[in-house]
Amino acid sequence: MSSDISPLAPKTYAALPPIRGARIETAAAGIKYADRTDVMLMVFDRPAAVAGVFTTSKCPSAPVDFCRENLGGGQARALVVNSGNANAFTGQKGRASTAMTASAAAEAVGCSEAEVFLASTGVIGEPLDASKFASVLGQMAVSASGDRWLDAARAIMTTDTYPKVATRTARIDGVTVTLNGMAKGAGMIAPDMATMLSFIVTDADIEAAALQAMLSRHVGSTFNAVTVDSDTSTSDTLLVFATGAASELGAGAISAAGDPRARGFSKALADLMEDLAIQIVRDGEGARKQVEILVTGAGSAKAAGRIARSIANSPLVKTAIAGEDANWGRVVMAVGKAGEKAERDKLAIWFGDIRVAVDGERDPDYSEAAASEVMKRDEITIRVDLGIGRGKARVFTCDLTKAYVEINGDYRS
Amino acid sequence: MSSDISPLAPKTYAALPPIRGARIETAAAGIKYADRTDVMLMVFDRPAAVAGVFTTSKCPSAPVDFCRENLGGGQARALVVNSGNANAFTGQKGRASTAMTASAAAEAVGCSEAEVFLASTGVIGEPLDASKFASVLGQMAVSASGDRWLDAARAIMTTDTYPKVATRTARIDGVTVTLNGMAKGAGMIAPDMATMLSFIVTDADIEAAALQAMLSRHVGSTFNAVTVDSDTSTSDTLLVFATGAASELGAGAISAAGDPRARGFSKALADLMEDLAIQIVRDGEGARKQVEILVTGAGSAKAAGRIARSIANSPLVKTAIAGEDANWGRVVMAVGKAGEKAERDKLAIWFGDIRVAVDGERDPDYSEAAASEVMKRDEITIRVDLGIGRGKARVFTCDLTKAYVEINGDYRS
Repeated sequence: MSSDISPLAPKTYAALPPIRGARIETAAAGIKYADRTDVMLMVFDRPAAVAGVFTTSKCPSAPVDFCRENLGGGQARALVVNSGNANAFTGQKGRASTAMTASAAAEAVGCSEAEVFLASTGVIGEPLDASKFASVLGQMAVSASGDRWLDAARAIMTTDTYPKVATRTARIDGVTVTLNGMAKGAGMIAPDMATMLSFIVTDADIEAAALQAMLSRHVGSTFNAVTVDSDTSTSDTLLVFATGAASELGAGAISAAGDPRARGFSKALADLMEDLAIQIVRDGEGARKQVEILVTGAGSAKAAGRIARSIANSPLVKTAIAGEDANWGRVVMAVGKAGEKAERDKLAIWFGDIRVAVDGERDPDYSEAAASEVMKRDEITIRVDLGIGRGKARVFTCDLTKAYVEINGDYRS
Repeated sequence: MSSDISPLAPKTYAALPPIRGARIETAAAGIKYADRTDVMLMVFDRPAAVAGVFTTSKCPSAPVDFCRENLGGGQARALVVNSGNANAFTGQKGRASTAMTASAAAEAVGCSEAEVFLASTGVIGEPLDASKFASVLGQMAVSASGDRWLDAARAIMTTDTYPKVATRTARIDGVTVTLNGMAKGAGMIAPDMATMLSFIVTDADIEAAALQAMLSRHVGSTFNAVTVDSDTSTSDTLLVFATGAASELGAGAISAAGDPRARGFSKALADLMEDLAIQIVRDGEGARKQVEILVTGAGSAKAAGRIARSIANSPLVKTAIAGEDANWGRVVMAVGKAGEKAERDKLAIWFGDIRVAVDGERDPDYSEAAASEVMKRDEITIRVDLGIGRGKARVFTCDLTKAYVEINGDYRS
């Protein structure tokens, strides 16, 4: 947790209402940090349906392995998350640590270990001493309550400078259901995965398969469309839990993602996911600007996505943004290196509303002063039109500042 | 040209002997920089065989397009290189500029425009006013001489902090032939291409096709094995010229890359290319450390190469190195995100001679103090053994420092 709060931090945090069927407690177990909470337990009093997406890393953390195994059961009673240690690349010790945590959580909540979900974030390669918090889970399960969302979001932070929460509502069968979500991010954030840690809970009654289908549909345009530094974590975990408690109020069960009664819910879920994903970018390590990369006119949506990521991950584009320099030549470079079809002489580029390049060269009407004005904003859109097809994609990122280097040159020690 | 010279700069520069058949002149045309040379003309008094490799960018610069067209002829009489402007993404104006330069060079040297080769480096998107130097090429061709290699290497610099030259000799038919080379680099340097600009000249008599075959064979393990910032330039150009003048001394013509008489030459060429490529890494923007990434035991050489690049391009690995932190957890992350086959529990990692991880977890005998000692050096080798096959690869890179962000946040303006 850095002492300097991101200039892009929200001015106020959303007040998250309790979710029927879900209770939360946090504790300070002293895993790595002093004087702060670092463990979060969420209890589902009755089994919640669960859906998840995990890192695509070939070296996933022990908790990711553990969750993947339990996800097949589709049912959750407890979620335990710790910060300060990722329990990644910890071999047999890592598996022993997840086993100890799951066993303690199952006993605390009164469920099977197959209904426990785990996530860990922090340093890679250090053995995680789960005894530090396994012993307090019993007490935490008793004192857990429904109104601790912001506390929970704080407990899972690492280099984040602010907690990330969001809430939405939707109507099912005329009944209002609620979706609450939290996320953590900051560094080791890259596309093609579920970003570091995010947990979303709803009281809607959605079957696990339907929940998974909606989650998978929306992850591409939300969490997988953000990148801080192109580095994919070993621990990325995004879990959605549906307690179903709203069924008691008349919001009937949803068993298929395509059910028209779930349309509003699915839209609210996508919206919530985008909100959390953008909050992660805005708290990217050292970030001073939020950047939206919009690619249109590409050969396909996939090509557009690759080109957008190539721009969003380019150190030269990101440092130019940090320097408030409308350096569109570097955008051309990043389009060119993406390896996707592009015709130089059909390319057009905008910073904000200012078209800086058209037909493969500098826009004759382009005003450097106007473009510089755009670059001074703290939210910048860079749009590239390839002029060769209908493929489009959008990626969110942040600038690359000296603070990123500072934070990451001195994170572990 | 930065005022702070890289701490990794060579203490002295190699003294490059003249190459029979090649003469050089430089001039200060005021393209962008004040008080320095920015144009280099190389004249081959008789047609030299030429081989080349260019950027894989889909948005190549006008000079790259121009060279690609002329390379088919396999014959060169003049090379014109300017710094300060890349003549990239300059549309019709860019083509007019290369045409004007080629026409002036052809007239100056007395050759066809098809025997002229061009390269430009500097800002992207600004029209290049070739009239600034086209008019002086005639005089430059007259005054050009054989001993201006270091001057030439200086004239092509942009954010480079030192000129990059190297020389080698080889024996063909008992006769000593010489190879001289120069390169420029600094930023926008990434694998899978010929890096920014490099020109190599020999007096050996090697036919163009044989020269191209040797060049293509060696480029993968030399220029394509370095990365500063993962950003591939629009202008990367590597050209090799063989004047053939040594044939007068008895070094007979080589018409096939496989000719056993060319074995020593090919080895000297590879060695020279590696020397220049490493000089580029050592002058990477903001670089304070040279880093060798060695991947062994991968499923294939291609997989090893991808994993090595994933490590070498990871901002988190590079900032850790800048911070002298033996943060092998980030190496695990970069292996995991590469997308190539890896078995976490078979992975071993070394920093220098210190094995920090083995069998998928921290090496029990690992001494943090010993690893920290390695990190203080200015040349660091990180070795990863995947333990699953025989594929291996080597990539050279540098650390990512605050100076990189500083240089690139304020380069164009």
